[in-house]
Amino acid sequence: MEKNNIKKTVLTGDRPTGKLHLGHFVGSIQNRLKLQNEAEKSFYMVADMQALTDNAENPEKIRINTLEVAIDNLACGLDPQKTTMFIQSQIPEIAELALLFMNLVTLARLKRNPTVKSEMKQKGFGEDVPAGFLIYPVSQAADILFAKANLIPVGEDQKPMIEQTNEIVDSFNRIYGETFGHVSHLVGETPRLVGTDGNSKMSKSLNNGIYLSDSDEVIEKKVMEMYTDPNHIHVEDSGKVEGNVVFMYLDIFDSNKEEIIELKKQYQKGGLGDVVLKKRLAKVLSELITPIRERREKIAENPKAVMDILQEGTKKAREEAIKTLNEVRQAMKIDFF
Amino acid sequence: MEKNNIKKTVLTGDRPTGKLHLGHFVGSIQNRLKLQNEAEKSFYMVADMQALTDNAENPEKIRINTLEVAIDNLACGLDPQKTTMFIQSQIPEIAELALLFMNLVTLARLKRNPTVKSEMKQKGFGEDVPAGFLIYPVSQAADILFAKANLIPVGEDQKPMIEQTNEIVDSFNRIYGETFGHVSHLVGETPRLVGTDGNSKMSKSLNNGIYLSDSDEVIEKKVMEMYTDPNHIHVEDSGKVEGNVVFMYLDIFDSNKEEIIELKKQYQKGGLGDVVLKKRLAKVLSELITPIRERREKIAENPKAVMDILQEGTKKAREEAIKTLNEVRQAMKIDFF
Repeated sequence: MEKNNIKKTVLTGDRPTGKLHLGHFVGSIQNRLKLQNEAEKSFYMVADMQALTDNAENPEKIRINTLEVAIDNLACGLDPQKTTMFIQSQIPEIAELALLFMNLVTLARLKRNPTVKSEMKQKGFGEDVPAGFLIYPVSQAADILFAKANLIPVGEDQKPMIEQTNEIVDSFNRIYGETFGHVSHLVGETPRLVGTDGNSKMSKSLNNGIYLSDSDEVIEKKVMEMYTDPNHIHVEDSGKVEGNVVFMYLDIFDSNKEEIIELKKQYQKGGLGDVVLKKRLAKVLSELITPIRERREKIAENPKAVMDILQEGTKKAREEAIKTLNEVRQAMKIDFF
Repeated sequence: MEKNNIKKTVLTGDRPTGKLHLGHFVGSIQNRLKLQNEAEKSFYMVADMQALTDNAENPEKIRINTLEVAIDNLACGLDPQKTTMFIQSQIPEIAELALLFMNLVTLARLKRNPTVKSEMKQKGFGEDVPAGFLIYPVSQAADILFAKANLIPVGEDQKPMIEQTNEIVDSFNRIYGETFGHVSHLVGETPRLVGTDGNSKMSKSLNNGIYLSDSDEVIEKKVMEMYTDPNHIHVEDSGKVEGNVVFMYLDIFDSNKEEIIELKKQYQKGGLGDVVLKKRLAKVLSELITPIRERREKIAENPKAVMDILQEGTKKAREEAIKTLNEVRQAMKIDFF
């Protein structure tokens, strides 16, 4: 397997638009934690520039959540000794690289990007999409390539971004000479977690998330309101397992797989109430989230220490950026002085 | 006149896609020379990043012409003591500012820009326009605003760029607080010089230009081939003055306005041949271009000295860029460290 001989440089990140929830945890954070131990180099980026592309009117929100997502990741176990944690906006070389890449991508190609297309639809943008938002896949290519990262843990919906990045790699290398390598993506075991309302994606804007900062009471309340089987009215009724959010969550978060198989059988037969299942799920989720939340609270007591970690990481990441941009400028013949 | 009390900061520039011609001279260079004596601050930018937006495949051409356009301007009399001459690509803060501005401009707005629209048509781009080319008016806003320039000598076709810049100023100030001032444009006395073939614009791609580096022989040859009045076949024929390229040039370049009025009368009456007129024009143009060309040749002997001027200017311009970006980052709340 040739692939195993290539040294892995992992890059991952979050848009700081809100605290992180279980969807982030299973979709990307778990992978981050695993990969920081396996990779040659590991980078974590707070994507504040990207967040501003559709939050230009609300910089305060992005500022506050830059700290929050960093705290979330540290609380989950991201280790600054293993992972270089940095803030995107503090590395101007990324902006420069993005602008250079923009000459290699057509408007038609940007509009064809399925992720951007569906996000534009969701946000109701149409042709009034901010230019910065439309071109964010090009910026993402710059986010990845400044660090010469080659393995990107992504949610399933982010795969088209990796394709776009590899197209840019091909164009750049063809025109300016071999400079960048191809990038692989790694989708987590649970690429997409449904929301508590059964909606296809857990998302802050849909108000259907369980957060890594939620208290036990909040977790229980959210689980109790979860969508199950609308026809399962009495305990003795037979219930549906497919599309039942509580079972979907138990499948992911409950480690006792055998008991879950039994519970499913019982539920389908009748005689198992939603409340019993929900109590079980609330307990499982509390056991997962409580230690994270407690670490979170402790870390949040000292925001200065978190900013110090980000500053240190940004310095380190910027050194890589400067190195890469020197190469790029030379390849593009804009290395004048 | 309140306007006269505002200190003028002038910014101007060329895309380094070829040597400069008479169209550049009357359209912008003359204004530059005048303004560098009047303005509080004067900047001249070699817009290599912008040139790359539709020349991504040809970086060598942009590299070579970066030097050539700087030499052209120095030969015309741009004075590095008065005008800070710099290379766009060497100021990464401009890229950063452009990316931040991109969040304030919609795709629909970019597509409505009449200059970009007509250039896209001319270049046959359609939806396959490189993203970098489509967004270049946003980059131009960054070119202008990093230096807080407020007076931009432009060709007539560049007016929409100034409008776009002022819209960005308004959005930025509204959202992030008063940071930038409005920008005025100044169109030269001859905003658009027709080509030697009578085509509406002198342009390298139309092969209808007279260059500041042309020899007397080349100038004479180009003038002799100029478009006059196709029905003016014999000397004794009456000829048309309107649409006659030779007269259009004489109006602009011949300082003896009274003699030109006489010549026009004679030409319309009949009895004045094209060759006489063309000889006169060739002489006038030679007298204009010869000293420029001679200075050009002298300057070109020492390209290192030109690069030193650009390096020194770039250093100075970058200090302004860093100052402005610090303000911008603070206003946008991305001043983390």
